[in-house]
Amino acid sequence: MQLSELSRESGLPIPTIKYYLREGLLEPGDAPDSGRAEYSESHVRRLRLIRALAQVGDLPLSTIARILEAIDDDSVPLHHALGVAHYALAQRGGMSAGSVELAQARVEVDAFLDDLGWTIDADAPDRDELASALETLRCLGWKVDAKVFMRYARAADKLAKRELSQNPGDLDRERAVENAVVGTVVFESALTALRRLAQEHHSAARFPT
Amino acid sequence: MQLSELSRESGLPIPTIKYYLREGLLEPGDAPDSGRAEYSESHVRRLRLIRALAQVGDLPLSTIARILEAIDDDSVPLHHALGVAHYALAQRGGMSAGSVELAQARVEVDAFLDDLGWTIDADAPDRDELASALETLRCLGWKVDAKVFMRYARAADKLAKRELSQNPGDLDRERAVENAVVGTVVFESALTALRRLAQEHHSAARFPT
Repeated sequence: MQLSELSRESGLPIPTIKYYLREGLLEPGDAPDSGRAEYSESHVRRLRLIRALAQVGDLPLSTIARILEAIDDDSVPLHHALGVAHYALAQRGGMSAGSVELAQARVEVDAFLDDLGWTIDADAPDRDELASALETLRCLGWKVDAKVFMRYARAADKLAKRELSQNPGDLDRERAVENAVVGTVVFESALTALRRLAQEHHSAARFPT
Repeated sequence: MQLSELSRESGLPIPTIKYYLREGLLEPGDAPDSGRAEYSESHVRRLRLIRALAQVGDLPLSTIARILEAIDDDSVPLHHALGVAHYALAQRGGMSAGSVELAQARVEVDAFLDDLGWTIDADAPDRDELASALETLRCLGWKVDAKVFMRYARAADKLAKRELSQNPGDLDRERAVENAVVGTVVFESALTALRRLAQEHHSAARFPT
């Protein structure tokens, strides 16, 4: 198909596609210098993936580029490719400057995750994300320790276990990584939206106007 | 206390505090024109809240200003003030342009939420957020309907019910709204971090390197 059809199929404007081509997020089509480059279904698929990560995941292009690289590089093991996406998502917020309180919270979060028996890289940035959440609560006067997250950890564990078990074993590597990344990003957005909606529902019952 | 102590207590640099004062996010101290304005514990508290929303919630200042206004305005009912925070969080990602597919997904999401029996404003932007997640999955070739979110809705419902029941009834209005907003923002960050950590754990088991 030509560029105009690629635009229709992917739902992205032609200038955006051209930008992705220039930035190397999208492979050139066949005969790119002829002015009538030919694109395939794999181009459509890739553009839809970029759109999902950018719109639903709210990820910057530089992060998306790193995720796509991990998907495309066959030498990167599946587990590690998913890790690249996780780390990109964790680092969206940016970390606060280190403090004694934050370092203390991090020690407690590490012990909490150990107690859960989870196998997690020592450098996983989500450890800091969780420590930052704990430190923030305390800073606001909440008298809590890491166990305040127990109910959330249990819910997350149940959901993640199910998510990972659903990836059918007969998918090719690229499709499997893609599914895992999409699942992480899109269901994260769905889960947070549903939690806010559920809060609205329960808040209406608790604080009638 | 003076500005330098306010900076130490809140963990925010003096220029940042001055910026918040100029932008009206923070009430002026006593005797603001003397060059030795006096600040109180309520200033410390407010600055910590702004920091939590900005750092953990990753919210822009304009959004934080709207949330603070709702907290401060006694005429805004508690339930509605929490709604302002919810709506601000939902709108972080920005919406994709409307399409027939998105409109169809929205109809299905509305029916799904009705089936759950949740009382939710017809204009809640999280309805669109969820519709966008559904439409994205389909666009990527997943053959799913809104029921794909059922497990997430159940988990969210359980967490939200517990969260709303924990707000002790004897808090003053301002503190109650503050707690609800902080709980929404900080535990959202904790929940998504824990889900990614749980995925890493289960992924390590599923795809050994």
